[in-house]
Amino acid sequence: MSIPDFQVLLDETVRNYRHYAQDGKVASYIPELKKGDPRWAGVALMTSRGLFEGGDTRHSFTLQSISKVITLLVALEERGMEAVFAKVGSEPTGDSFNSIVKLETSEQKPLNPMINAGAIAVCSLIPGDSVEERFRLITGLLEKILDRSVEIDEAVYKSEKETGHRNRALAWFLKDINSLEGDVEEVLDLYFRQCSILVDCADLARIGMFLATKGITEAGIPLISAQSIRLATTFMVTCGMYNASGEFAIQVGIPAKSGVSGGILGVVPGRYGVATFGPALDKKGNSVVGIRMLRHLSQVLELSIF
Amino acid sequence: MSIPDFQVLLDETVRNYRHYAQDGKVASYIPELKKGDPRWAGVALMTSRGLFEGGDTRHSFTLQSISKVITLLVALEERGMEAVFAKVGSEPTGDSFNSIVKLETSEQKPLNPMINAGAIAVCSLIPGDSVEERFRLITGLLEKILDRSVEIDEAVYKSEKETGHRNRALAWFLKDINSLEGDVEEVLDLYFRQCSILVDCADLARIGMFLATKGITEAGIPLISAQSIRLATTFMVTCGMYNASGEFAIQVGIPAKSGVSGGILGVVPGRYGVATFGPALDKKGNSVVGIRMLRHLSQVLELSIF
Amino acid sequence: MSIPDFQVLLDETVRNYRHYAQDGKVASYIPELKKGDPRWAGVALMTSRGLFEGGDTRHSFTLQSISKVITLLVALEERGMEAVFAKVGSEPTGDSFNSIVKLETSEQKPLNPMINAGAIAVCSLIPGDSVEERFRLITGLLEKILDRSVEIDEAVYKSEKETGHRNRALAWFLKDINSLEGDVEEVLDLYFRQCSILVDCADLARIGMFLATKGITEAGIPLISAQSIRLATTFMVTCGMYNASGEFAIQVGIPAKSGVSGGILGVVPGRYGVATFGPALDKKGNSVVGIRMLRHLSQVLELSIF
Amino acid sequence: MSIPDFQVLLDETVRNYRHYAQDGKVASYIPELKKGDPRWAGVALMTSRGLFEGGDTRHSFTLQSISKVITLLVALEERGMEAVFAKVGSEPTGDSFNSIVKLETSEQKPLNPMINAGAIAVCSLIPGDSVEERFRLITGLLEKILDRSVEIDEAVYKSEKETGHRNRALAWFLKDINSLEGDVEEVLDLYFRQCSILVDCADLARIGMFLATKGITEAGIPLISAQSIRLATTFMVTCGMYNASGEFAIQVGIPAKSGVSGGILGVVPGRYGVATFGPALDKKGNSVVGIRMLRHLSQVLELSIF
Repeated sequence: MSIPDFQVLLDETVRNYRHYAQDGKVASYIPELKKGDPRWAGVALMTSRGLFEGGDTRHSFTLQSISKVITLLVALEERGMEAVFAKVGSEPTGDSFNSIVKLETSEQKPLNPMINAGAIAVCSLIPGDSVEERFRLITGLLEKILDRSVEIDEAVYKSEKETGHRNRALAWFLKDINSLEGDVEEVLDLYFRQCSILVDCADLARIGMFLATKGITEAGIPLISAQSIRLATTFMVTCGMYNASGEFAIQVGIPAKSGVSGGILGVVPGRYGVATFGPALDKKGNSVVGIRMLRHLSQVLELSIF
Repeated sequence: MSIPDFQVLLDETVRNYRHYAQDGKVASYIPELKKGDPRWAGVALMTSRGLFEGGDTRHSFTLQSISKVITLLVALEERGMEAVFAKVGSEPTGDSFNSIVKLETSEQKPLNPMINAGAIAVCSLIPGDSVEERFRLITGLLEKILDRSVEIDEAVYKSEKETGHRNRALAWFLKDINSLEGDVEEVLDLYFRQCSILVDCADLARIGMFLATKGITEAGIPLISAQSIRLATTFMVTCGMYNASGEFAIQVGIPAKSGVSGGILGVVPGRYGVATFGPALDKKGNSVVGIRMLRHLSQVLELSIF
Repeated sequence: MSIPDFQVLLDETVRNYRHYAQDGKVASYIPELKKGDPRWAGVALMTSRGLFEGGDTRHSFTLQSISKVITLLVALEERGMEAVFAKVGSEPTGDSFNSIVKLETSEQKPLNPMINAGAIAVCSLIPGDSVEERFRLITGLLEKILDRSVEIDEAVYKSEKETGHRNRALAWFLKDINSLEGDVEEVLDLYFRQCSILVDCADLARIGMFLATKGITEAGIPLISAQSIRLATTFMVTCGMYNASGEFAIQVGIPAKSGVSGGILGVVPGRYGVATFGPALDKKGNSVVGIRMLRHLSQVLELSIF
Repeated sequence: MSIPDFQVLLDETVRNYRHYAQDGKVASYIPELKKGDPRWAGVALMTSRGLFEGGDTRHSFTLQSISKVITLLVALEERGMEAVFAKVGSEPTGDSFNSIVKLETSEQKPLNPMINAGAIAVCSLIPGDSVEERFRLITGLLEKILDRSVEIDEAVYKSEKETGHRNRALAWFLKDINSLEGDVEEVLDLYFRQCSILVDCADLARIGMFLATKGITEAGIPLISAQSIRLATTFMVTCGMYNASGEFAIQVGIPAKSGVSGGILGVVPGRYGVATFGPALDKKGNSVVGIRMLRHLSQVLELSIF
């Protein structure tokens, strides 16, 4: 497939799948998220020959759960694999992302770092003397990957901080079972900040390419060990799409992580970063249009790792 | 049975059952509770002819879960049955007292006011402009029943407030499912205070008599409606002894409420208040010696309502 | 209250509450049950002065879950309390009557003899060399209580036997956790037979009186020990109305057992047997009209044990 | 790596990891399985240049859960993807392989074809006029892959059929929720047969190679569509190692399926079939030595797909 074909493919993809947005709904549990327009649809492909984009790839949105991948990388690098897996497990779960049930009935550790409970536990492992310092480790990595400064959406951050009762319940439960280090409110603050980092679809494709090249920036600088990258992408396969990860593995077959603001970060190991944006979500919290577009691209470009 | 017989019976009961304490363990999840001596054993019987006591009935201990009965009475009187049951259910549960599972998987309301989640929800309904004012409604009722002033154990209160992570998780979960009114930390503060109120075994027998006489004080003053009393004693039967309530109903058969500091408050409708104290607990959190003694008294005095 | 008043009360009760049937639905999970007419409503009160009836008290229906009380009595008498509680627990549950979850997650014993799993375990304890012989122990007790021969509804029996997949799953699970004695299909056969025994509302009031008088027949013959009766009525309070038992205890306050064919068996200890019939059920499987009528009678006649 | 190196590598691998067997236990829940010797350890690697073997690769054992892969392939080919996923889901689960909980609390469909409930549902989709005919579709595929006739271990088959109470419970539950086609006992018979098929470690490596080459036999004959193969290997990644699949993905990173008799079938897409044998199992039911050996081979030969 030649270079111009990528552009044609992405444009076609957006055109043909955009209408599936009508099957989904924009997330409303965080008031600020309701502002997303369900008709937006974008797709971006980062290749060794540069970035290709189709549709609404330059709307800013918040990372939400996609941030879990970044924070996991930081925690693995800063604290090591053993310290991380002392606080969080590595198993997929059939429960929804904000479920608290398994914390009580299973191994008394959040099942994996991609569900909220696990991601909060991972957050607590990020070192630093203040929330600001800890947060800079996360944004620092992102800024090096994207080669630009990043900021958060203050309104979303405040909104999540005020209304995130379920996450607060998870955090206190984690504290009780000794899976959360340090001060609960500080960890939650860090978690809400990382969820509020602003990116666009093109950024996500760049992040995907960073993962696809095992932690090497576009400028050729190695930032993260290949082993940490491998761990993160493995979790993206087994648990990256909430409790629809199994179906996504079958239908699309690439490591991916979705967020409730409508983004999906995809990795085609050794080849591409691929990302989609579309705020209309299905019942499990994944972008309806995003999944359709990724499925199409996976078939046309043979992206499945399976 | 003549008056001296009560005294003989209680003395004998303590003597014969005290040794069962070795089958239990003093609660340790709140650091302050560990100070209880497992060998303590006391029993008190409040009758129309006065109070009878055997064994260690004058050691002070904190109300803990027994406070749930008092707060429920206050909430029912102040807010009415409908308002209370909008926030809490009325079904027993096979789960343990601090379980969070059913909050997620069942009707999205704590199952009953005797488990921690339900009691916290009930706490949130106590009216007042400050924690102090709200707390005075609870202590006020107790002081009228006992005809003396009551105070809290400051060390236990602080200890629970600092280490009550699971209760904090329950409270935030309740907030998320709209079963907790007002400020979470204020409600928790009220809950930890009520758990820390100091009583002794003789006090509990007086409270039991207050319930047995449908809300009339020893001085003959009606404080609580018969309907609220009936509700509270019904919950004591179906859920008062944690997830051992069914077995207790079979073996003892009186409305009762236990607490992890080792007390049990018992009601023999129309006849007696009966209470026991013994800090060694079984696996479900009930006083080992207390249950044995109540079972014996129930057989000898034919106390079962069934 | 004089004798004619009972008659007036029952007639009025049926007249005033019959229309609540529109809030419920006739059970459909067993095909044969669908034949029940939702408009039927009957109430019967057995007193020391004889039987009073209002409404549709002479329609035959199958015992269904009400049979669990009878079989429990037989098992307790034939095998003893210890043998029974080796196979079944004594705790209420917040789960529905046919739930299998707790079998796996809790103590590996059905929680109580009033849920299907527990009742099947109890069935397996009824002694005998054949299903017929074992079943005769159950019908034998009923025939002595009612002073007439009883039979089963063959169509219902066959229907349940053919379509009772969930009960079959429960039985095999019980076999796996060693809570079911003997041959699974034989035990299920016995269970389906006991569920299919034909009675009417007047019969249930007589059974209620038998329990109210601690196991003495109308002719004055003691059939069952007072202790077994006490156990059965205690279970009726804590678990007799499925996972609405707590609410029923509060609103009505008498030991009772419901069945999906629309009957409710009630016991007023020392005073009456009371029964209702109305095939329209609420979501938890209890007769809508039955609960309303019992609540009314409980208020007027002060029947609550609480 | 040259040809002799494979041999050296496998011999070394067995020698260095065999002793880990002491950390595990031979399965005992099926009486016949207890006969396995915990000291057995074997590894086999099927490459385009032929088969390499180290250790105890020629002991026969029963397929057990590994058969789920074969039956899934047959069901997909015979009935199509849509029919299969009408009866079974595609999500991993944090619960154990024989859990019944999720059947009740989640989407009322077994979560995936690799847990027992899902595999029994898939079994029910295998077409045929008799169990024998249906079973021949499964053995037929195996015989073509292995180019030899296969048979079952009659003693294991009978043992599982007689003692498989939990599987019987799952099957009836599936029948109740309409996830099992046809006669329950016939489906269970088929399931117990497939679990009892005799293979050795070398056979498993050949099956692995068949999957690695997208369904082409060693003789070059295409038997199964690439899409069905892709589905099966995807499930092996997300759910093939019971509720240790996530950890296995991280540590080993190849599609694999384990069985309680101690075998593990591994697929290295496009390159190898790899298999291990070692009857001592960890708590989750996977071969202790097998996982250690596969982890070592994955590191040395860079087998991870992640």
